[in-house]
This record gives sequence, structure tokens and C-alpha cells, in this order.
Amino acid sequence: MKITVAQLNYHIGNFARNKELILNAIEKAKNEGSDLIVFSELCISGYPPLDLLDRHDFIEKCNDTVNEIAEKCTGIAAVVGSPTFNTKPEGKKLFNTAQVLSEGKIIFTANKALLPTYDIFDEYRYFEPERSFSVFSFKGQKLAITICEDLWDEQPFDNEFEKSRLYTVSPMEELAKYNPDLIINIAASPFSYSKIEAKENIFRSKALKYRIPVITVNQTGANTELIFDGASLIVKNDGEIFRQLPFFEESVETFSIDQINSGIVPGRDNDPGAISLIYKALVMGIRDYFGKTGFKSCILGLSGGIDSAVTLCLAEAALGNENTRVLLLPSRYSSDHSVKDAVDLAKALNVRYDIVSIEKPFSAFEEELAPLFAGREKDLTEENIQARIRATLLMAVSNKYGCILLNTSNKSEAAVGYGTLYGDMAGGLSVIGDIYKTDVYKLAEYINREKEIIPKNTITKMPSAELRPDQLDSDSLPEYGILDTILYKYIELQKPAEKIISEGSDRETVMRVIKLINSNEYKRYQAPPVLRISSKAFGAGRRLPLVARY
Amino acid sequence: MKITVAQLNYHIGNFARNKELILNAIEKAKNEGSDLIVFSELCISGYPPLDLLDRHDFIEKCNDTVNEIAEKCTGIAAVVGSPTFNTKPEGKKLFNTAQVLSEGKIIFTANKALLPTYDIFDEYRYFEPERSFSVFSFKGQKLAITICEDLWDEQPFDNEFEKSRLYTVSPMEELAKYNPDLIINIAASPFSYSKIEAKENIFRSKALKYRIPVITVNQTGANTELIFDGASLIVKNDGEIFRQLPFFEESVETFSIDQINSGIVPGRDNDPGAISLIYKALVMGIRDYFGKTGFKSCILGLSGGIDSAVTLCLAEAALGNENTRVLLLPSRYSSDHSVKDAVDLAKALNVRYDIVSIEKPFSAFEEELAPLFAGREKDLTEENIQARIRATLLMAVSNKYGCILLNTSNKSEAAVGYGTLYGDMAGGLSVIGDIYKTDVYKLAEYINREKEIIPKNTITKMPSAELRPDQLDSDSLPEYGILDTILYKYIELQKPAEKIISEGSDRETVMRVIKLINSNEYKRYQAPPVLRISSKAFGAGRRLPLVARY
Repeated sequence: MKITVAQLNYHIGNFARNKELILNAIEKAKNEGSDLIVFSELCISGYPPLDLLDRHDFIEKCNDTVNEIAEKCTGIAAVVGSPTFNTKPEGKKLFNTAQVLSEGKIIFTANKALLPTYDIFDEYRYFEPERSFSVFSFKGQKLAITICEDLWDEQPFDNEFEKSRLYTVSPMEELAKYNPDLIINIAASPFSYSKIEAKENIFRSKALKYRIPVITVNQTGANTELIFDGASLIVKNDGEIFRQLPFFEESVETFSIDQINSGIVPGRDNDPGAISLIYKALVMGIRDYFGKTGFKSCILGLSGGIDSAVTLCLAEAALGNENTRVLLLPSRYSSDHSVKDAVDLAKALNVRYDIVSIEKPFSAFEEELAPLFAGREKDLTEENIQARIRATLLMAVSNKYGCILLNTSNKSEAAVGYGTLYGDMAGGLSVIGDIYKTDVYKLAEYINREKEIIPKNTITKMPSAELRPDQLDSDSLPEYGILDTILYKYIELQKPAEKIISEGSDRETVMRVIKLINSNEYKRYQAPPVLRISSKAFGAGRRLPLVARY
Repeated sequence: MKITVAQLNYHIGNFARNKELILNAIEKAKNEGSDLIVFSELCISGYPPLDLLDRHDFIEKCNDTVNEIAEKCTGIAAVVGSPTFNTKPEGKKLFNTAQVLSEGKIIFTANKALLPTYDIFDEYRYFEPERSFSVFSFKGQKLAITICEDLWDEQPFDNEFEKSRLYTVSPMEELAKYNPDLIINIAASPFSYSKIEAKENIFRSKALKYRIPVITVNQTGANTELIFDGASLIVKNDGEIFRQLPFFEESVETFSIDQINSGIVPGRDNDPGAISLIYKALVMGIRDYFGKTGFKSCILGLSGGIDSAVTLCLAEAALGNENTRVLLLPSRYSSDHSVKDAVDLAKALNVRYDIVSIEKPFSAFEEELAPLFAGREKDLTEENIQARIRATLLMAVSNKYGCILLNTSNKSEAAVGYGTLYGDMAGGLSVIGDIYKTDVYKLAEYINREKEIIPKNTITKMPSAELRPDQLDSDSLPEYGILDTILYKYIELQKPAEKIISEGSDRETVMRVIKLINSNEYKRYQAPPVLRISSKAFGAGRRLPLVARY
């Protein structure tokens, strides 16, 4: 038996496009003599469809699309993922379903049992969990068809609770009773740079435990903030990896079961390293956000600092230099080298740049506000005005030319609120908002790995917002190395203050940083979607009450 | 036996305050000779604690607080709600628990079985559902202690799915097997103007079905966007309402079981009407957002239009005129009557107003952008610049004086994207963002019910953004009466386009409005939290993929 793994890039709600992708892959699989082609979880609707699942007509369109695809499954069977109606009188209105299509019919269905409802996942919001299990008999083989989390009943958790089993059911334990020959797992599993090995281990351990091969099919491509790495795995029954499909690319590959069972490993990509994967993830994230919303071009403010430099390089890689433009927006406090560094980078990438001084609008604001501010010292207010003038100029070009403003804030500053709402926090998409400052430097080095694209001076100079004379980030914040360690432990690992202190961080700094994180929830509430590459990004996966005192 | 209902206003994570509230009520109940005092769901932590529940140290603090309160429960028992650790090896890490405290001990616990995970609720994100049930025997009575949704197994749903039972378990059906004498329901149920009767009916139908009285205890007060109405109910065993505690107020009242069973109804507040409840809800929403974040004063932009006028009246009612100030920000397109109407209102409320022209910053922006915009027509860009200048001025005063900018957008314009991101969409809190324009008028009439506070001209003139000469909202949008009907059916009732058309709305208008709603998700993603008074507000209860094509 030959099986085809179809790792594709779906678009939420774009049924015509998803159907076309699927039919093209079916055609390819047929040409390769495949018996069964496997697509990923909720491939019909795109993942995550979120509250579109609350619309009855949306589910009907999913059903229609499945039926249209079934008609084309002649001489081959296809496993597709789609939401389906729960026709029982009780329970949630939908199931998250794998359907096997063949010769115009749906010949088998399996519903998801374990519904991830944590971090960015909200599946119990929509779906009823399945409680009964059966295998699919096909061409003399028994296939255990599982959906993503169904195999994740023993996942490790990044928190202080030390619970190893999030669920009270193990679907694979139930399916194992039928002695299946193969485990198929259709998934929509977003990329997280710290979870690459953990994810592989989930599948390897299941193969080893049940002594049967595992074929996983993950989607690739980005939908808003979530970036799916693909990297679909074929694991042998001894837990060894037989094949891993590429990261962040569409790929349709056919294997014979005999080939997998015979144990000849055709090799996999060399471990590509976290930074290069993050780089690829972000480029895909930008490209798909634009492609899927129907936009082509971007604008961003280039300051001469490292954050906007790295964002620009990523944007240029995603959209092309002809679709990327920048504004340089110097103020009375900008240093000469900032403008020069920014110009050098724009020239190196051959992107259009314009220099617009913010001095006149700033003076106009100062003048208008003078009567209201009489007798008051200059403070953060004046810094924020400058940042908001820049945002207004960038948004003006965005509006006039129909390009999307890219936000250039990093995760460290977003965490401690070192940024201006409606100012440098503006933009349609935050590109590096899930990258700590210390990792922004690593990305810069990666971008410069072959030749100097980002000017050396941008990388080596002390970070500064340049909103008052001789300002440095280190005036207001701990050194980024110290800061990022605390942030990672508090945000990703959810450690309490006392534990972070006991692990060696300075008490006063820890308490100050945690206070900054918590008191700036209100700013992040209004931040743009952040391309997610970690296990805990700001945005939909992290929900905190703005009015809490904690 | 005497039972005290404690309807209080908790603050998330503020354990000291919540404990003090609870201890004061216990003291009052003791003085009234009560045997049992009942507090609301998760009163220890405040509701909703959201991802604070992912922090192990947060749960430990909840436990500590419960133990401290138990020590004070001498001569009285208390039912409190708190998150507790799930000590079983499997399942979610927490339970949502009702604990009965007495003489320093926890003498009974009941965990929530039905975990609302829809709209603004995410309880399965944190909690394991309880699967076993028992009653609490106390002073010769058997009490069925349930937690909020536990009694909502037969709730009606506003969508096209026609499912009447969201859950496969009925906790009360299980508890009924023990023949309890009384149902206690501790809740954290937010206000929705369209659900007042439905909520009452839930409790009345349970009392009638099991022929036992129901005592519900809801929290009051607002936490960020959620406003809890209180309105705790005591229902007799024939389904008749014995007593309803006040809406939007703290209240601690003691009843004897005999009194309830003897069927003498002490009366309830007259049906107050939806608009007056919405008014109270919004005032409480503003007051608590400020009080709980530690701010005292607000600023907003007063345009002379009805939205900012109503927002100002609500703010003044919540915070007092001394803590409320406004900026009038006329442009070259502002009409004379706008400034006059705004000044009249500011004077009527005796709030500070300043008039700051946006002309100079606008000219400065036009000048700076002229080289970039050469050969291009004027368009929305120039309108957006004006809105962003206003936001920059308002935020400057907000920053300088430490007051929060209130957003004045209504739900109709938020729905169709008729607003400027980082412009009139800015603010720390959206006051009327869940009120359709046609209801904003009703609020204005309510505010003017005794005397003219909002100038008649503000109410009667045609709505206009005044961002270009002679502009009217009706140039870009359908009449608000027509628009709001479509919006309500599409957003609250989730009806498909075809159904809305079949019910009488014009096809072209419906398709245009739906397209506007969907294509403006990206703007609402960055909007401030919206005080929620409907069954479906923009914000955390409505999650849609920005990149969807639908």
C-alpha cells in the first residue's frame, strides 16, 4: 500500500482555494500510484477557524466542499479534516472530524477526542469530545486515525503544576485494542522553537510503545499570528524517524508501507538550528499575512536601530524589495549615525526610503499644548508625542498607498511596556514581537551570516529610543541579558518571583520587572497580532485581566 | 435556618480586599443570627481570573485566603468559591470549587461540573469538570450546592444550531436523587440586557421542576469589560420569585428558610427597563475600571455629536465632574454648532473643557507629507490624519495628567469599521462600544429624562464625523435603523446573509454590511476593551481570524 502525505498551506474560509490545493494533491498522488492520501486537520476550513465555527452556514460550506472532493476521489481514498455537525441531541454542536473519502462517498469518520483548550487553543469552545473509538480497515490494513492532540495525552507542560496527563482518556490506548497496523495523525500544530524535539518525541514514543509506524500530517503556512511548520513525520515502529517533510514549505510525498516497515531511512534535513527556523517562520508569517489578506506591500519606520533593521530584512525577504518601503523619521534627538545606518540598510536592500522630519508637527503639538501644560515639567508625554507623530506619518503612507504598516517592537519591550501605544506599538502585524531582544541580535547575525547587510554599527551600538537627549534603553531597563532571563522564566515558564530569585536573579530587579509586565497588560491588549514562534507569545494565547491587582 | 446572601464586588487578585469584603459580610450575617452565608463563584480570586489561574502561586494564595476566612467562621458556616488543586494524577490542574467553611475547617466541597467555554467564558481552559455529586447536610437540611453553569444545562442558544442541551450531564438531575431541601447556586454571571428574563427562567424552571427553593448568589461589579449585575434571586418551590437583590449594587441580606417556604413574597424591584439597566451597567463599568486600576480621572474628546455626549454623561456620573475633563478639538471642517453644543454640555455638567484646534498640526503633517503625496488625490488618508492628531492631543493630556482616555465609539461604527485606528478608536476603555447607534439615542433620552442635559441639537442633527466639508455618516453607511437591524441579526443572532435577506433587509445592503464587518476585524483586534452589555460584544467573547476570507 502506498500512502501520500499532503502538507499544504490552507486559507481559513477560502473553500475554493483549499479545494483546489487538495484536488491538485490528489491528482499528484494518483499519478504516483498512491492508495491513500492524507491531508491535515480541518484542512477544509483552514485552521484555526475560530468563531466562524459558530456560523451554521460556514459548516454547511465545509460539508459541501467535502462532498465535492469526495466526487474526485476515484481510484484513491483521501483523509480530510473538517468540522462536522454533532447530530446527537446533547453536547457541543460540532465534532472536529477526520473523514475518509472514496468514490464519491464518506466511508469512515473519526472524531477528535482530546480537545486542546489552553494557550492559543480553544477547541472545547466549539467541539464535543469523541468517546468511542474504532480503526479503519483499508486494503487489508487496520489504520488508527487520530487527530492531533489525540496522541498528546502524555505531553510535558511548561508550568509549576507538574501534571503529566492533561486528559482522563487516551485515544491511542483505546485504538490499540484493535491491533492497528499504522497510526495516522492529522494535525494543525503551530511552530514553537522550543518544542521541536518534544513534538518529535511525542510521535516517536507512540510508535515505540505500540510498535507500529506513525504517519503525521501537519499543515504549513501562517494564519494571522500562528505559523505552522509542516515538518510532517514518518516514524518507524522502533521510534526512529524515517522521513521528515520540510519545514515551512508545502510538500506532497508518497511512501509505501513496505518501505517504511523495511526500515531503510531515506534521511532527513540536517538539524537546521532554532534561529534559522525562526527566520523562516517569520518570513512565512509575513508573506501569508499579506497574501491571505490580499495586500502586497508594506511600510515600516527605520530608525537605525536593530529592531527595525531586522524587521525590514524579514519583510524584504517575504515581500520583495519592490513591495517594501521605509520612512526615516528623525527628530531633534536623533543622532547622525542613526540616519546614516538606516540609509545604508535601505540601500543595501534596495528598498525605497523617504526621510520625513517630525520636527514641524512636534513643534505644532508643543505650541497647541503649551497653554494646557503650563507650569508642568517635560516628561514621558513629550516622548510619546514624537512616537505618535511617527505612527501618524507611517499610517498616512499606509492609507494613501494601501500598504500595511509593520510593527517593529520586540518581545522584551512589549513585556515591560517600553513603547508608546498608538506610537511605535502601531502596525497591522508585529513581526518580532515574540523575539526577546537578545534573540533579535541573533537574528541580525543570521541575516548577516554571508555578508554584512545590517550595518555593523546598528548591531554594536547601545540600544536607544532617541526620544530625549542621550537617552539609552539601559537608563530605564535592566541590561537585556538580565531582563530576558527574567522575562522568559516568568512568561514562558510561569515561575513565581521567589523561584526566579532563588535561581540567581536580583530580587529588586525581578520584582520591578514583574510589576512592569503586569501593569502593562493594558498596552498589549491593543497591540497588533504578534507572529508566534515561542511556546507563550503575547496575544490570544495569553489572557490576563487588565484590572487585576497581582 | 437562616441563610445570608452576600452579593459583593470583588477585585481580581486583590486577596486582601476580597477577604475584607467577605469578613465584613460574615460579621453582618452573624449579627443577624444567620446560620449560613453564601458568597459567589470564585469570590476569593475575583472573576474572571483568566490566566492568573496558570500561576501556581496564585492558587496557593487563594488557598491561604480561604483558610484565613475559615478561621473567622465561628458560629456560622460560609460557602465561598475558589479555584482548588485537582490532586488526581490526570486531568486539568484545577477545579472551580464551592467550599463550605466552618470553625476553622473546610467541611464540604463541591466542584463545578459544567464549564462554560463559549463567548467570554474559557473555563475548560483551566478546570477539570466534576463527575460525581453529593449534597451537603447542614442543620437537618440537605443542600444541593451548585456552581453557576451547573444549573444551565438546558439553556437556550442564540444561533442557528438549534441545540437545546450543550452538555451531556445534568448536575441537578444527579443531585435530585438525594432529595435535597434547597438548591444553592453560586454564580459569576455577567449582565446582558437581552438575557434578564432568560436568566430568571433558568432558576424558576429548576425550582419548579424539583419543587424546592433556589437561592442564587451572583457577584456584582465590573472587571475590565465584564459587568456583573448581581440581581441574586431567591425562588420559591413553585417557581415564583421570592426576592431579587438589587441590580449593580452590593447587598447582604438574610432570609429564613421558613419565610421562603411559607411563600410570603416581600416583593422585588419593579421591572427597571433595559435602558436604565444598561445605563447603570455602564456607570458601574467605568467606575470599577478606574477604581480597580487605581485611576481617578478621565479625559475624552467632545465633538458635539451624540456618542461623545452620552459617553461624557456616563463618565461624569461614574467619576464625578471634578474627575472628568474634555477637549474640544475642532478642525477646519467642524461646524460652529458642534463647538457650541459641546461647550453647552460641558457647562451643563460643570466639567473642565479646553478647546485645542488641530489646524496647526494638520497643516504641519500636510506639509511634511506633500512630497510623498504629490500627484495623489485627497482621500481617507487626510481624514485619518485629523482623527490621529486628536488622539495624540488627548493622549498627551492623558499622559501628562495621569487620566485615562475614554473611547467614544459606538457598536455600529465599530462593526463596519467606520473609525480610525489610533484615532477615534483610541482610549483605555470603550464605554459605548457595545451599544448600537439607535440605542445611543435611547441612552441620550434616558439621560435627558428629567431635564435637558445633552443639548437637543446634539440629538436631532444628522450624524457626521466632520472630517471633510459637509460630510454625513449617511454618505458612507446605510441609515442607522436599517444598519443596526442587520448588525444585530448577524452579530448577536449569527444569522446567515440569506436569512437576514429573507426577513426583509435589502440584499445589496446586507452583503455590503457583512463584508464591512468581516474586513474590519483587524481594526477591532486593536480596539480597547468594550464594556459588555449585550449577549455578543466585540472583544474577548468574539474571536475571528483576521486572515479569513469569508
